[in-house]
Amino acid sequence: METGPSAPKSDQGPPRTYTNRRSVTIHWGDCDPAGIVFNPRFFEIFDASTALIFEAALGINKREMLAKFDAAGIPLVKTEAEFLKPLRYGDTAIVESTVTFGRTSFGVEHKIVRDGQLHVKGIEKRVWTARDSSGQMRSAPIPAEILKACGVA
Amino acid sequence: METGPSAPKSDQGPPRTYTNRRSVTIHWGDCDPAGIVFNPRFFEIFDASTALIFEAALGINKREMLAKFDAAGIPLVKTEAEFLKPLRYGDTAIVESTVTFGRTSFGVEHKIVRDGQLHVKGIEKRVWTARDSSGQMRSAPIPAEILKACGVA
Amino acid sequence: METGPSAPKSDQGPPRTYTNRRSVTIHWGDCDPAGIVFNPRFFEIFDASTALIFEAALGINKREMLAKFDAAGIPLVKTEAEFLKPLRYGDTAIVESTVTFGRTSFGVEHKIVRDGQLHVKGIEKRVWTARDSSGQMRSAPIPAEILKACGVA
Amino acid sequence: METGPSAPKSDQGPPRTYTNRRSVTIHWGDCDPAGIVFNPRFFEIFDASTALIFEAALGINKREMLAKFDAAGIPLVKTEAEFLKPLRYGDTAIVESTVTFGRTSFGVEHKIVRDGQLHVKGIEKRVWTARDSSGQMRSAPIPAEILKACGVA
Repeated sequence: METGPSAPKSDQGPPRTYTNRRSVTIHWGDCDPAGIVFNPRFFEIFDASTALIFEAALGINKREMLAKFDAAGIPLVKTEAEFLKPLRYGDTAIVESTVTFGRTSFGVEHKIVRDGQLHVKGIEKRVWTARDSSGQMRSAPIPAEILKACGVA
Repeated sequence: METGPSAPKSDQGPPRTYTNRRSVTIHWGDCDPAGIVFNPRFFEIFDASTALIFEAALGINKREMLAKFDAAGIPLVKTEAEFLKPLRYGDTAIVESTVTFGRTSFGVEHKIVRDGQLHVKGIEKRVWTARDSSGQMRSAPIPAEILKACGVA
Repeated sequence: METGPSAPKSDQGPPRTYTNRRSVTIHWGDCDPAGIVFNPRFFEIFDASTALIFEAALGINKREMLAKFDAAGIPLVKTEAEFLKPLRYGDTAIVESTVTFGRTSFGVEHKIVRDGQLHVKGIEKRVWTARDSSGQMRSAPIPAEILKACGVA
Repeated sequence: METGPSAPKSDQGPPRTYTNRRSVTIHWGDCDPAGIVFNPRFFEIFDASTALIFEAALGINKREMLAKFDAAGIPLVKTEAEFLKPLRYGDTAIVESTVTFGRTSFGVEHKIVRDGQLHVKGIEKRVWTARDSSGQMRSAPIPAEILKACGVA
């Protein structure tokens, strides 16, 4: 449920980041016996939000993107999250996800905001990978076409 | 992501059913090493779709509904599903959910349709419950206001 | 956490079924705001229990089994479950899973028992599959070595 | 599946930490289309592993612990993880979880080790909470009996 990407930030030199926003609704099954979101569910939200950044920029979904660029995946290397305010089932929130590109890796910052207040903050570090001739996943340069679609070129 | 409820079917006597439709997108994390949706995810989709029937009819979310009607939950008694065609990450499908009301219980039929083809079919049987004086969950009559909101009265 | 397979039932003709038992512990994150297991979690338990039937019989895990027999997976075609008594986090229960073999398909009956009482009952119908020359998953005969390992031959 | 707690580390003054170890098996449904564990599953493993620390020390499960000490939960405030080597379905690994206690909060370090190699490392910061007279969750001192059971007193 995209609410649409924002224009990438630009000052001097090429812009380094690209941001997408989407709305998420918290369901009963996302919550634990305390009635609040069970923390692993936020990492599911982050994972899907990162895929949707690329979908917003490229106009194709993650499966089509991996196939088109002959990529093996964008595995997570490191992540962290802060849980500032709880979310409950029935709540709707905005996830604002900003990617910052390196050469073969990229970082994503996710902010989950409800009623103008930051509830959860997450950071992901991921690697662009391809399979080598032996079938092993190896890091590989992020394709120029993706950087261009994100306004980073 | 509601696509909106349809008018309840009516012939003679009061209409017995109410239908809601929503769109779901399949994410990477919903899928297994075969690349298709891991079956328990469909039961998550069913569970959320049932909650959204009531939200569509009443205009309040499940948490607000349980609080308003002093209910303890709508636990699942029995369920079944048929998996006719696989769904993959990146796929978007429509979930059409039709509730049929009894006095203290109700059935829901879910159809997950993509490109006009039925991919998954699910059936739930659930009970409306309240807590008795000792805190135990007991079946209770479905509130008349809910039946009315669903056009079943 | 196997508690060990039982001897297959035998009367006249070759035995048709094979049973495995294992213990499961319900965790906080398996439970919903009502404090009881969220129903899709039971289908995760069924899925893992079915894989563990083959592991108990063959002495290799599901990944090794699929590789050894050049299989594409054992996709679920149909499933159903009845929820007779709730389970809560901290509860430990026994899952008793019995497979009945056909030629290219098999059924599994799962019983989740705690303190001698049946809490949940599930049925799965699955198909043994291999990839054809175009990469499509097709049903295929269950390998004789597996039937033999299960005492069904 | 406990492999048993280790004696708390001690030097000068009271020991500050308590460690528990358990075995986990990776199931098919824990893995994604790349065939490796979907990252949110590790946070489920961390969450259950933290509960099992207290169970190992106290001899009662988390539900019984919260009831006994009139606690509302042990919500996660902050977490992070590093994914050093992938795990696949069928893999079995050891989770070594070490708690370090503060007054109302505690940290847990989780190490997931397979074949002697560190695969995943996680850190949690959690708060001990109770409900105040208005039903709100508030931080509260970790009960002395728990510290004592963990050899920290």
